[in-house]
Amino acid sequence: MADHVYKKVELVGSSPNSVEAAIENAIAMAGKSIKNMDWFEVVGTRGHIQDGKIAHYQVELKVGFRVEG
Amino acid sequence: MADHVYKKVELVGSSPNSVEAAIENAIAMAGKSIKNMDWFEVVGTRGHIQDGKIAHYQVELKVGFRVEG
Amino acid sequence: MADHVYKKVELVGSSPNSVEAAIENAIAMAGKSIKNMDWFEVVGTRGHIQDGKIAHYQVELKVGFRVEG
Amino acid sequence: MADHVYKKVELVGSSPNSVEAAIENAIAMAGKSIKNMDWFEVVGTRGHIQDGKIAHYQVELKVGFRVEG
Amino acid sequence: MADHVYKKVELVGSSPNSVEAAIENAIAMAGKSIKNMDWFEVVGTRGHIQDGKIAHYQVELKVGFRVEG
Amino acid sequence: MADHVYKKVELVGSSPNSVEAAIENAIAMAGKSIKNMDWFEVVGTRGHIQDGKIAHYQVELKVGFRVEG
Amino acid sequence: MADHVYKKVELVGSSPNSVEAAIENAIAMAGKSIKNMDWFEVVGTRGHIQDGKIAHYQVELKVGFRVEG
Amino acid sequence: MADHVYKKVELVGSSPNSVEAAIENAIAMAGKSIKNMDWFEVVGTRGHIQDGKIAHYQVELKVGFRVEG
Amino acid sequence: MADHVYKKVELVGSSPNSVEAAIENAIAMAGKSIKNMDWFEVVGTRGHIQDGKIAHYQVELKVGFRVEG
Amino acid sequence: MADHVYKKVELVGSSPNSVEAAIENAIAMAGKSIKNMDWFEVVGTRGHIQDGKIAHYQVELKVGFRVEG
Amino acid sequence: MADHVYKKVELVGSSPNSVEAAIENAIAMAGKSIKNMDWFEVVGTRGHIQDGKIAHYQVELKVGFRVEG
Amino acid sequence: MADHVYKKVELVGSSPNSVEAAIENAIAMAGKSIKNMDWFEVVGTRGHIQDGKIAHYQVELKVGFRVEG
Repeated sequence: MADHVYKKVELVGSSPNSVEAAIENAIAMAGKSIKNMDWFEVVGTRGHIQDGKIAHYQVELKVGFRVEG
Repeated sequence: MADHVYKKVELVGSSPNSVEAAIENAIAMAGKSIKNMDWFEVVGTRGHIQDGKIAHYQVELKVGFRVEG
Repeated sequence: MADHVYKKVELVGSSPNSVEAAIENAIAMAGKSIKNMDWFEVVGTRGHIQDGKIAHYQVELKVGFRVEG
Repeated sequence: MADHVYKKVELVGSSPNSVEAAIENAIAMAGKSIKNMDWFEVVGTRGHIQDGKIAHYQVELKVGFRVEG
Repeated sequence: MADHVYKKVELVGSSPNSVEAAIENAIAMAGKSIKNMDWFEVVGTRGHIQDGKIAHYQVELKVGFRVEG
Repeated sequence: MADHVYKKVELVGSSPNSVEAAIENAIAMAGKSIKNMDWFEVVGTRGHIQDGKIAHYQVELKVGFRVEG
Repeated sequence: MADHVYKKVELVGSSPNSVEAAIENAIAMAGKSIKNMDWFEVVGTRGHIQDGKIAHYQVELKVGFRVEG
Repeated sequence: MADHVYKKVELVGSSPNSVEAAIENAIAMAGKSIKNMDWFEVVGTRGHIQDGKIAHYQVELKVGFRVEG
Repeated sequence: MADHVYKKVELVGSSPNSVEAAIENAIAMAGKSIKNMDWFEVVGTRGHIQDGKIAHYQVELKVGFRVEG
Repeated sequence: MADHVYKKVELVGSSPNSVEAAIENAIAMAGKSIKNMDWFEVVGTRGHIQDGKIAHYQVELKVGFRVEG
Repeated sequence: MADHVYKKVELVGSSPNSVEAAIENAIAMAGKSIKNMDWFEVVGTRGHIQDGKIAHYQVELKVGFRVEG
Repeated sequence: MADHVYKKVELVGSSPNSVEAAIENAIAMAGKSIKNMDWFEVVGTRGHIQDGKIAHYQVELKVGFRVEG
């Protein structure tokens, strides 16, 4: 891992089903334009309520990826 | 959303099954007395352990709802 | 101020005009049901963007008021 | 503790004598209207000074209580 | 809002006039290259002082926008 | 609960499946050497990404247990 | 800016009119005794409420100034 | 309280007896050189241990006082 | 204090009487197995409520002690 | 500095040698694609351990740069 | 890294020379009793001053290591 | 250390060379007017970038010193 540099981007993924699915959706979208993704960090969990029920989980996360020189 | 005012209440939901179920239980209970619930924010995740196993997930959350003038 | 007890409620006020107007809107609404309001504390400032412009400032604040015994 | 839901309220108790007395005053007042109080969490300690001496300790706390369905 | 993914960028806007103008300047600049901006969150307020007066308000904010798949 | 003393240890559990499974793995491992475990607190959620997918959820948690005198 | 040293002082400015005016009042007062003020950082926004209206905005800020050797 | 400006200083008071006594010691010392002290905020509680017992409580606090123009 | 290394452990002490007694109980218990305890830091103050009264103060603290090589 | 807008990106630099070298490596890499870099803020310091020794310091930092209109 | 569990311990290393040397001293001491150390996280940097000069840097860090089942 | 009181001041030291040199510069300057300095705490690390290179490290620190009665 000699002297690698990483960049972190901040995303919000959403899913009607679970916290994990919201994270997966964000990472799947990020993977369309980012290569070498290495880790994620959850920085917040929220959600929308409609008609008294959870409509979507919304997970804020940072995704770290290696920058190629 | 013209000049709406929202109020937030802080709840703790519990469930033996999952983080999501604990959130859902809190929101279901809140919905018995609160109308116009709009969003939630998770502010903490804890749980009780009994006999070396998770007995309950306990999720602290804030629920925001629109106040009618 | 002998042994007074205060309660704090958490509100979100919104306004298309300014941070101050969003705070004022929240306090005006709170004053309809709360007496003896004494202070507020801003805990977050957010807003919605529509068509590339600020549609509403949204200020999260706590309002403290004296509880009568 | 099966699937219980708890609510938390934020209070400020004051006392000229001690941190503990300020907490007790807040809980005594809360108990007049809240049943099933279960725990408290101190979130801040402040106080007023008059003539160079402590006039009141002011303790900010959250009180958690079980909500009955 | 089915399964949308959002990205957040962190900006600092400045203005000699007000906190609101500094936010607006940052959002106006961001809008030149970012589509579908949806919300902002203020994460810090600072400023420069020259000759004993405020020269510029500097507001640090995050802007969230929807990523198209 | 008269005058009990508790100790907290900080762990990181991992699982390819879910946040809950990562917590359970950490608690199961801790239970091999710690008796009287009473509660846990999640202090962080991260994960590793491999080939554009989540390889492991990694949940940082504190586990509290009663110390016997 | 070779090896300069700065000192920061913490102030609270108040104004019945706006957040900006409260900051300006604090800086104007500080300028009576501090030279070489360079920047400020807002660390809190509060206010007093009287008769259901905002009586004063109170902005807590730190002011940084260059110390001359 | 028209447009008053306050300054805050950060102190650490110590006492072998209690948290309250450590706060009082800090305020008594501050009062020798500061007039118009108005409030304090506790920002940390620590202490030294000697021979397995508490030797001193050490309370970090900020003291706010009105600055005269 | 040449190049000493310290370790910190996190404890929760409880007492029906006061914050200070809860801290003392935790340190007394820790001293049964830890030598060279040097300082403590309070990281949280909570408590249990029973029948509308404080049953126990619970103080979370870290205890630092010198590790011998 | 009239009404400039800045953007901040979050990076992680690594170096086997020192905290400063890790920061420098991140900034050197960032400079390949970013112009007008103006300041950095360290937001975390971590590192990897191999065979009981520090293999790499890893410094998380934000880099701010001026956005040209 | 299938389902590994890690434990974190909190240490304070000191050195008269540099932040890095203080970290190294803590990790060297920890390595005498802990196997499989994997990473560290700096959580605070302090130091002692004697006769107007830095006597020791003191770095608080957490060290993570893999627990073997 | 019977009942001593300490005061803390907040400084920013700068140096083109290293984090440690920036701290030393701040403490050397502080020592010109402050006696009995006892410890420092780093509260932030930043720096300026010029022409793509680090021009200065800027370390924010608090310095504690004993106040004589």
